[in-house]
Amino acid sequence: MKLPLTPIRFLQCADRQFPQKTAVIDGDRRFTYSQFAERCRRLAGVLKAWNLPRGARVAYLAYNTHPLLEGYYGVLMAGCVLLPLNIRLSTEDFVVILNHSQARVLLFHSDFSETVEAIRPRLENARHFLCLDRGQAADWADPESYDDRLAGSSPDLKWDPFALDEDEVAEIFYTSGTTGRPKGVMLTHRNLYLHGLEAGLAVGTRESDVHLHTIPLFHVNGWGAPQTLTGMGGTHVMLPAFDPAEVFRLIEEHRVSVFFLVPTMATALVNHPDASRYDLSSVRMISLGGAAANSMLVEQVERTFGCLCVSGYGLTETSPVVTLSRPKSHLELDDADRLELQAMTGYPIPGAEVEIVDGNGSALPWDGETVGEIVVRSNGVMKGYFGDDEENLRLFQDGWFHTGDMATIDSQGYVLIVDRKKDIIISGGENISSLEIEKALLSHPAVLECAVIAVPDGRWGEVPKALVVLKAGSIAAEEELIRHARERLASFKCPKSVEFFDSLPKGGTGKILKRELREQYWKDQKKRVH
Amino acid sequence: MKLPLTPIRFLQCADRQFPQKTAVIDGDRRFTYSQFAERCRRLAGVLKAWNLPRGARVAYLAYNTHPLLEGYYGVLMAGCVLLPLNIRLSTEDFVVILNHSQARVLLFHSDFSETVEAIRPRLENARHFLCLDRGQAADWADPESYDDRLAGSSPDLKWDPFALDEDEVAEIFYTSGTTGRPKGVMLTHRNLYLHGLEAGLAVGTRESDVHLHTIPLFHVNGWGAPQTLTGMGGTHVMLPAFDPAEVFRLIEEHRVSVFFLVPTMATALVNHPDASRYDLSSVRMISLGGAAANSMLVEQVERTFGCLCVSGYGLTETSPVVTLSRPKSHLELDDADRLELQAMTGYPIPGAEVEIVDGNGSALPWDGETVGEIVVRSNGVMKGYFGDDEENLRLFQDGWFHTGDMATIDSQGYVLIVDRKKDIIISGGENISSLEIEKALLSHPAVLECAVIAVPDGRWGEVPKALVVLKAGSIAAEEELIRHARERLASFKCPKSVEFFDSLPKGGTGKILKRELREQYWKDQKKRVH
Repeated sequence: MKLPLTPIRFLQCADRQFPQKTAVIDGDRRFTYSQFAERCRRLAGVLKAWNLPRGARVAYLAYNTHPLLEGYYGVLMAGCVLLPLNIRLSTEDFVVILNHSQARVLLFHSDFSETVEAIRPRLENARHFLCLDRGQAADWADPESYDDRLAGSSPDLKWDPFALDEDEVAEIFYTSGTTGRPKGVMLTHRNLYLHGLEAGLAVGTRESDVHLHTIPLFHVNGWGAPQTLTGMGGTHVMLPAFDPAEVFRLIEEHRVSVFFLVPTMATALVNHPDASRYDLSSVRMISLGGAAANSMLVEQVERTFGCLCVSGYGLTETSPVVTLSRPKSHLELDDADRLELQAMTGYPIPGAEVEIVDGNGSALPWDGETVGEIVVRSNGVMKGYFGDDEENLRLFQDGWFHTGDMATIDSQGYVLIVDRKKDIIISGGENISSLEIEKALLSHPAVLECAVIAVPDGRWGEVPKALVVLKAGSIAAEEELIRHARERLASFKCPKSVEFFDSLPKGGTGKILKRELREQYWKDQKKRVH
Repeated sequence: MKLPLTPIRFLQCADRQFPQKTAVIDGDRRFTYSQFAERCRRLAGVLKAWNLPRGARVAYLAYNTHPLLEGYYGVLMAGCVLLPLNIRLSTEDFVVILNHSQARVLLFHSDFSETVEAIRPRLENARHFLCLDRGQAADWADPESYDDRLAGSSPDLKWDPFALDEDEVAEIFYTSGTTGRPKGVMLTHRNLYLHGLEAGLAVGTRESDVHLHTIPLFHVNGWGAPQTLTGMGGTHVMLPAFDPAEVFRLIEEHRVSVFFLVPTMATALVNHPDASRYDLSSVRMISLGGAAANSMLVEQVERTFGCLCVSGYGLTETSPVVTLSRPKSHLELDDADRLELQAMTGYPIPGAEVEIVDGNGSALPWDGETVGEIVVRSNGVMKGYFGDDEENLRLFQDGWFHTGDMATIDSQGYVLIVDRKKDIIISGGENISSLEIEKALLSHPAVLECAVIAVPDGRWGEVPKALVVLKAGSIAAEEELIRHARERLASFKCPKSVEFFDSLPKGGTGKILKRELREQYWKDQKKRVH
């Protein structure tokens, strides 16, 4: 029997097996799997009533809330493609993405009403504008609210699991709006289903899990957590916006067992003065990703939450999880080694393969020293970029997806990302990893956050500069931080200067926007590299 | 990216990630994943050198040992189809199966040399006979042994993951040899891969697992355990033949964490006088299947091994796992209810759907009382029976696989098998479940094993009869057992007679052969039912 692979099946199975179990908790609202699945079917009914063509893109400009999770299934059941927008992008980004993707529908929270009103005249394909939290008086918008529309839709949508082509696109996520051409990552039903199973096996997802969605569902497929969790019948807890105290409160109240963090979030949590006041005993696993971690942070997370903390790696293009840094059971590790290893990029989840290659695509040795570009082969890798056939042909021609991330792999198979290809600093002909310098600086007790970027230099072409945020109440001079780095790094790798900030600009999931920071130091230069 | 789904990828990934970790322990022999994968590639090389057509069936008449596990991957890498024979079948069965499947190759342990010599002249397609444990002098057999052949083969087989069609048949298992027409269950690469992931999520398979192969790999795909385990990089421990003391010894020596048992095996283990002498603390989970369990047995297993014990259900046709009786976390169960539930058939693994239907294929209510035939929809369901296109069309016409098992499903979604369709006893027009009676009798402290069958009766058409084996040193009269049953069952369901045996005949995995037992009571009858 060949049943098309699709995340819709995850919901169908959960609805049948866990009708009375809590599926979603979002503030004061709670839905059982029966209620949640019914809302998804009703949403599909709303979209079907609009007679959209098969594969029509349905965009969301929404907080990390239950309507977006309903879109994960309802939009797909209607035969449409889910397109969540990162709410932190600019108005200009929204126009570019919505036109490039030819989105027909836009669902939005009322906080974004003005934004939608402003961009609407420039949208070439959007015809339906539905507000997620109240009716709209404007003549361009649906007068009914999302909940009213659902109430008026039938709960009895029939969905035939055999009618679907598993290679159809299910979701599109845009990875960059304004820089260069927009890149719409197309993930198929099959990508999402297999990634759900494979990442679930790696994470050890359980039916009893309560997952806190710290990573917005509008970002990189919510790190893939929604699908596995629904497939297992676990409970989703929504987090509309990241706030440390709220995270602690939700963990305690709902007995949260698993969540994912970017390092800046983890730093904020472990340094929070009230951390010890909450009951965090339900937490069994935390995964760090999105940026490099370090063993000190891993240790602090394990101590604060009393759980296992591992690092992960992935890209929107890979659904996203590729590796997780679980310790391999046959390695005999002391605690320090174990923490070091868990701060690494990790090894592939089941079904995924990773190699590092040189500029010709030839595989490089796994010696922990040779640096090459990470290439990935797995069923989580996207179908391609939307509307970019030429790039897609090029991308997949050797059967591997080229990530643009530079890494080593050690003899035990553990990947360590050295840098983004484009964040490598080339100083006097030497390759310098900005991440390696950041790691050294983060080991200084006064440093809360830092970003190392290349700045122009008359002699060396470019040199590393550290942009640093100190911990509240801590003091450290530029010279002290440079000396701290020099004790840990080859001298050519040391930052030549340090600048202090109150905060650093961050993207949708709290990643520091290094390219934006870099820009101001290069604006008088003809080229952006030397 | 669309990468064909195949269990070969499981081995490939384990080879790359766990080259130095122990993959297989078989008596005195141990292989790392690097060595094991190399042996599989060499086996593929041996088969390729024989220029077999693509999809040629390669049969095994072998104990549950590492060469058979090598066949799970090596045969597939050669583009051939694995066909393991249940070694407990008769010589006549072997001839029927090998000819029906048109097997070209037979690999066998030397204990079966005489059998192979005897059937060889009647085999229509077999050309290669390779002994697994020594060279053969006979002119019809390969003069070299399996290990010699591997040694002479290249370790460098190149295997292209994109070259495969995932819907190609990978394995064929025959479910019955002599009764009726032979049924060769065709499992595709896709079936096996997805079953591996989905059953692995349900079992919670971990990289650190050490799995004891109590279920022979020549039977029902080894209950699916080999593929998940390889995919996660776990350790296989082979058990050539079931022996309670040997099971205990292997658990203690190799720190076994998971294994599967049929109830008769479990009964033998928990009643073994030396059970408490072994260190069994490594065991984390045991799954019972193949026949109905009862809560007393589940409890005994949990107590003996200090682990979770659940029941499972599946068929060769479903790869095989369909359900597992894990407790759902939102149900508030006391210990007695939990044990009762874990003795049930369970609820579907992720990605599988189960319903019960009436004779017209209409779905029946989940009320814990209505009995219907179990139908299954999942990617673990076979492609069909080999060479039986007509039956295959019929089998899949309504999109569900009809199992022939009769069951109820309760309001929480838990399936309870009432009987095989053909083991239902129809007495005076009432349907009586033989399993229900067996369960009642097994709750008597003196009863070790029992089988309830229909025997002809002048008045009622047929009536239930119990065939019982008592525990060593225990005594119980026929009247006492009937009274014991009457206290627990409606009187029309009580066995009308009890007959005592020293042992009951069992099939390949220890299942009691009820049809064989039934036969002697019906041999003077014109029909086999009344």
